[in-house]
Amino acid sequence: MVKLENMKNIFLSDSVINLDHGDPTAYEEYWRKIGDRCTVTIRGCDLMSYFSDVNNMCWFLEPKLAEAIKELHDAVGNAATEDRYIVVGTGSTQLCQAAVHALSSLAGTQPVSVVAAAPYYSTYVEETTYVRSGMYKWEGDAWGFDKKGPYIELVTSPNNPDGTIRETVVNRPDDDEGKVIHDFAYYWPHYTPITRRQDHDIMLFTFSKITGHAGSRIGWALVKDTEVAKKMVEYIIVNSIGVSKESQIRTAEILKVLKETCKSETENFFEYGHEMMKNRWEKLRGVMKESDVFSLPKYPEAYCNFFGKTLGSYPAFAWLGTKEETDLVNELRRRKVMSRAGERCGSDKKHVRVSMLSREDVFNVFLERLANMKLIKSIDL
Amino acid sequence: MVKLENMKNIFLSDSVINLDHGDPTAYEEYWRKIGDRCTVTIRGCDLMSYFSDVNNMCWFLEPKLAEAIKELHDAVGNAATEDRYIVVGTGSTQLCQAAVHALSSLAGTQPVSVVAAAPYYSTYVEETTYVRSGMYKWEGDAWGFDKKGPYIELVTSPNNPDGTIRETVVNRPDDDEGKVIHDFAYYWPHYTPITRRQDHDIMLFTFSKITGHAGSRIGWALVKDTEVAKKMVEYIIVNSIGVSKESQIRTAEILKVLKETCKSETENFFEYGHEMMKNRWEKLRGVMKESDVFSLPKYPEAYCNFFGKTLGSYPAFAWLGTKEETDLVNELRRRKVMSRAGERCGSDKKHVRVSMLSREDVFNVFLERLANMKLIKSIDL
Repeated sequence: MVKLENMKNIFLSDSVINLDHGDPTAYEEYWRKIGDRCTVTIRGCDLMSYFSDVNNMCWFLEPKLAEAIKELHDAVGNAATEDRYIVVGTGSTQLCQAAVHALSSLAGTQPVSVVAAAPYYSTYVEETTYVRSGMYKWEGDAWGFDKKGPYIELVTSPNNPDGTIRETVVNRPDDDEGKVIHDFAYYWPHYTPITRRQDHDIMLFTFSKITGHAGSRIGWALVKDTEVAKKMVEYIIVNSIGVSKESQIRTAEILKVLKETCKSETENFFEYGHEMMKNRWEKLRGVMKESDVFSLPKYPEAYCNFFGKTLGSYPAFAWLGTKEETDLVNELRRRKVMSRAGERCGSDKKHVRVSMLSREDVFNVFLERLANMKLIKSIDL
Repeated sequence: MVKLENMKNIFLSDSVINLDHGDPTAYEEYWRKIGDRCTVTIRGCDLMSYFSDVNNMCWFLEPKLAEAIKELHDAVGNAATEDRYIVVGTGSTQLCQAAVHALSSLAGTQPVSVVAAAPYYSTYVEETTYVRSGMYKWEGDAWGFDKKGPYIELVTSPNNPDGTIRETVVNRPDDDEGKVIHDFAYYWPHYTPITRRQDHDIMLFTFSKITGHAGSRIGWALVKDTEVAKKMVEYIIVNSIGVSKESQIRTAEILKVLKETCKSETENFFEYGHEMMKNRWEKLRGVMKESDVFSLPKYPEAYCNFFGKTLGSYPAFAWLGTKEETDLVNELRRRKVMSRAGERCGSDKKHVRVSMLSREDVFNVFLERLANMKLIKSIDL
C-alpha cells in the first residue's frame, strides 16, 4: 500500500511550486503543537460595533491588541512604543498606503516623490501607482534620486527581497522635505539579530511575517507625530471603515502567547523559527556550494540582544542570483518553480526572489530542483 | 439603592448621543438570545495562508462564505447569484472603491465621471476624492449630469440617506459609456419589501447592515463581467492583499444561521428586525405627528415576496427635514444629538440623516430630545 505521505511526495514531485508569494505557511507546525492555548471563541453577539474605543484617536483599534503589541515589542526589544500612536491596518499593506497618503497630504507641494533603494519590495511599485494619485509619484530607485521637492523614502530592514540591513540612502542634510517610512516586517529575532531598539517616526509591522498568520491581514504602525497618525487613521476610515475586529482579537491572543513564551526554553516561538530558518538556509547554502551557477548574499553576524548571543541572518526570502546571462525567473519556471523576477524589484533578469517560508515538503522539492538545475547547467556548459 | 439601569439612564440623559454613524448595535439583543449557535472557535493553526482557494479568481474568498452568500440570497430572493463572480471585500466600502477603480481602468478615456442622485451617501464623495485619482472624478449629483464621456452612476436602493427606492437617473439611451454600481446594502426584508430578485451587473452587499456585524468589515459584490471582477480582485490585492479570514468564516457561520432560521416562526432574524424597525419608525412618526417643525419622507407600501404580504418601508436612517430656515445639524447638536448634515449628502441645511440602528436606550433618548425640541421651537415662535 502506498502511504499518504509518499502519495503527497509523488504528487509534489511533478507539480508547480509557488515561491513567488511569501506565504508563511512554514510556521503552521508550531501553532499546531501549541494546541488550545491560542484558540479564540467568538459569540454571535460579540464585536458588532464599528467602534473599539471611542476615546482613542484610532477608534477602531481593539484595546487588547494595542496592549499586546506594546508588551511584545517590550519583550523582544526591537522597537520603542512609548510616546507614539498605534494605528492598526488591514495588513501593513494598507498601512504603508495610509502612511504615504498621510505624509503626502501634509507636504507643501504635490506630487511627493516616493522612492526605495533597489532591490526593493516590488509591491511598493503597485501600491504607489495603481490608483494614479495626484498626491504622490513613484520615482523608483532611491540610489541616485536627486529630484527637488518633498519626498518619501521607504526603508525596509531587513530588506525584502535581499535580506540586507538598511538605512536611508537619500542623503539631504538639513532638508526637512524628506520623510521616511520604516518597514520592519522582518525585524524579528528569527530572521535577524536584534541589534537595537528602533525608534523612528513611522515604523510598520505585520502579523503575517512574525507568526505566519497572513490570513488575518493585521499590521500596525508606530507613529510619533499626531498629525501623521490622524491622517493615517482618516485614510483607513475612508478606505475600509476600520479593520476586522475578529482578526484583531485573535492577533491579540496570539501575540500574548508569543510574549509569554518568548523566554521559555521549550516553547519559544522565535527560537523555533530561528532554528527552522537557520536549518533551511544551511540546506540552501549547501546546494549552492556545489554550484558555480548560483549566488546568494552573505550576511554579517551580529550580537542579538534578544537571544543574548552573536548570530547570523536568515531572511524570509532568498535573493538568488546567477552568474550566467540568463533570465532566471524563466529558467526556474521551466523547472516548475515560481519566483519573483528581479526586474520587478528594480534589479535585473539575473536575480529572483524566492520565498523561504513555504511548507517543509515544498521547500525540499525546491532544493531538489535547484540541485538538478545545477547538474543540467553543468552538462549545458 | 440606585439600580444600574437607572444609573445608565441618568448618565445617558445628559450625554451626547451619536446618530451620525449608522453603527447597527440595535441587533445585539437578537444575537445574545441566539446563544451559542453562531459561536465560532478558531485554533492557533487555522486560517494562516493568504490563500483560501487557489482555483478561484478571487483566491482570498473562503469557499464557505461564498456558499453561505449564495444560499442566503436564494432564501431571501433579493438577488440573482448564478453566472456571476463573488468578490469579497473589507466591507462594501472597499468594494465600492474596487468597482469604481475596475470600471475606470476599463474605460476608453479617463478620468471617468462618478455621480449619484442627491441626496446621496456622503461617504461616496470621500471615497472618490481622497486619493485624488486621475482615473475617475466625483461629479456630484446625478440629476442634471450631462457631461460627455464615460461615467459611473452609483445607485443605492433603498437609498442612504432617505430610504427611497432608486433606479438610475442619468438617462442616455444607446450609450455604452455609462456603467452602474448598485449598492444594495439595505435591500433586505427588515428594511423594505423585497419586490424583485435584483439582477444587475455589479451589486454590492454588506454584512454590517444585514445582521449588525459592522465590526467584521465584510462585504461582497456580485459581478457579471469577468474583466470587471478580475480588476476588482486586483484592486483588493494591492489595497490589502485580501480580506480577513477570521471575519469571513464568522460571517459564513452567521449567514448560515440566518438562512436556516429565516423561515422559522420564532427565530427569524428578519421578522425580529422588521418588528423592531417598524416599532421604532412608528414611535418616531408619533413624535413627528405632534410637530409642525419636522418632516419625514413617506414610503409606499408594496408586496414583499419574502414575507408574502404587503408591507411598508422602515429604513436604517431617518431623513429628517425641517420647514424652518435653520441649520438642522447644529440645532440637533445643541440638543446633544449628533447627526449627518444634509449638505454632506448633496442636500441642504434643512435636512439631516439620523441613524435608526442605535441601541434601544439611545434611541429612546433621541425621541425624548426630539419631542422637547418641538416644545422649545413652539415657545421660540
